[in-house]
Amino acid sequence: MNPLPPLTIFGDHRSGNCHKVRLICELTEQPYQWVEIDVLSGATRREDFLALNPNGRLPVLQRRDGTTLWESNAILFELAQNTPYWPANERAQSAALQWMFFEQYSHEPAIAVNRFIQSIGMQMKERSAEYQANLKKGATALQVMERHLLAHAYLGETEMPPVERPSIADIALYAYTHVAHEGGFDLDAFPGIRFWLSRLEFEHGFERMG
Amino acid sequence: MNPLPPLTIFGDHRSGNCHKVRLICELTEQPYQWVEIDVLSGATRREDFLALNPNGRLPVLQRRDGTTLWESNAILFELAQNTPYWPANERAQSAALQWMFFEQYSHEPAIAVNRFIQSIGMQMKERSAEYQANLKKGATALQVMERHLLAHAYLGETEMPPVERPSIADIALYAYTHVAHEGGFDLDAFPGIRFWLSRLEFEHGFERMG
Repeated sequence: MNPLPPLTIFGDHRSGNCHKVRLICELTEQPYQWVEIDVLSGATRREDFLALNPNGRLPVLQRRDGTTLWESNAILFELAQNTPYWPANERAQSAALQWMFFEQYSHEPAIAVNRFIQSIGMQMKERSAEYQANLKKGATALQVMERHLLAHAYLGETEMPPVERPSIADIALYAYTHVAHEGGFDLDAFPGIRFWLSRLEFEHGFERMG
Repeated sequence: MNPLPPLTIFGDHRSGNCHKVRLICELTEQPYQWVEIDVLSGATRREDFLALNPNGRLPVLQRRDGTTLWESNAILFELAQNTPYWPANERAQSAALQWMFFEQYSHEPAIAVNRFIQSIGMQMKERSAEYQANLKKGATALQVMERHLLAHAYLGETEMPPVERPSIADIALYAYTHVAHEGGFDLDAFPGIRFWLSRLEFEHGFERMG
């Protein structure tokens, strides 16, 4: 009999928020069991799923003792404890969380949502005003990242003290940035972002989705 | 000559996100200087402000050494270090961050935005479809909180280990929940939330905005 894995992840393999959780497990070599849930099937709105996450969203982490944690970036925080992806220094911790809250408020709602709209042909007509507005909002978010990445190697990098390695902030923003073109965003105008993406993939084993 | 205060907060006194930062300073007795910025004046889009926060949003924390931190919930994290508002236990830390990411993704974009729309008469006509959609989204977020607060005293509370005191998750969600009626949300249907709000205000010195 196989031992029960320490972690179970409920996720949809097409979702960047779920991809974040897979990435932190792979990068830090933590064994996990993946339970695929089709977000379009309505399964996340059923009572058995709401018992795992009352907010009805993916991903959800279930620990071996049965307790659960939801919100992709909170899961990143927990799984990065005692690994180099959660910086030891307090200033660098704050900086990482700053970019992770930026990701959920200013980046994901434009860039991930446009990718979702674009993936479902019918929605491109029905939601075209929203899609166009998101193109502007998403471009602004990418400009904020670009401004930082032209001067810094990583998002959570700090000068005082000097911290220069990827953190969970880079994982969180990698997730939907590396597939931004699937939501209508052209990264040609963002050389800092493109260089950051390729460094992560080359040096640190970040894997693309799908 | 007065000594330079250790912390400078750039904020708009009408903003719940800014109110969070004021609350953590007051609750933990950390001295600060408040620099009022009118978010409607366009000041946050000017280059001098973008040097503080490239994302052009309030609040911003400036430390005595001149470095800055933005995103209200990252500021809460930093200012709560070494205070009881950042739990010592890792599970409780994850739980607090879970609710704080929920706040920025599922709660604030509906409840704070409706309050803003309602505060500017002209916008109520121009943005009525968005306002109506937000009433549904915000009610869902309040239901998620209610489900938790009917069984737990605080948002970041955990059973294993037992942690039962308010954390920065309660500060983050207090901010716009206690003024939700200003965005068209009726808390009468949410006795758990109302009891939680009054306990925070009575026992823990949470102060209402304005």
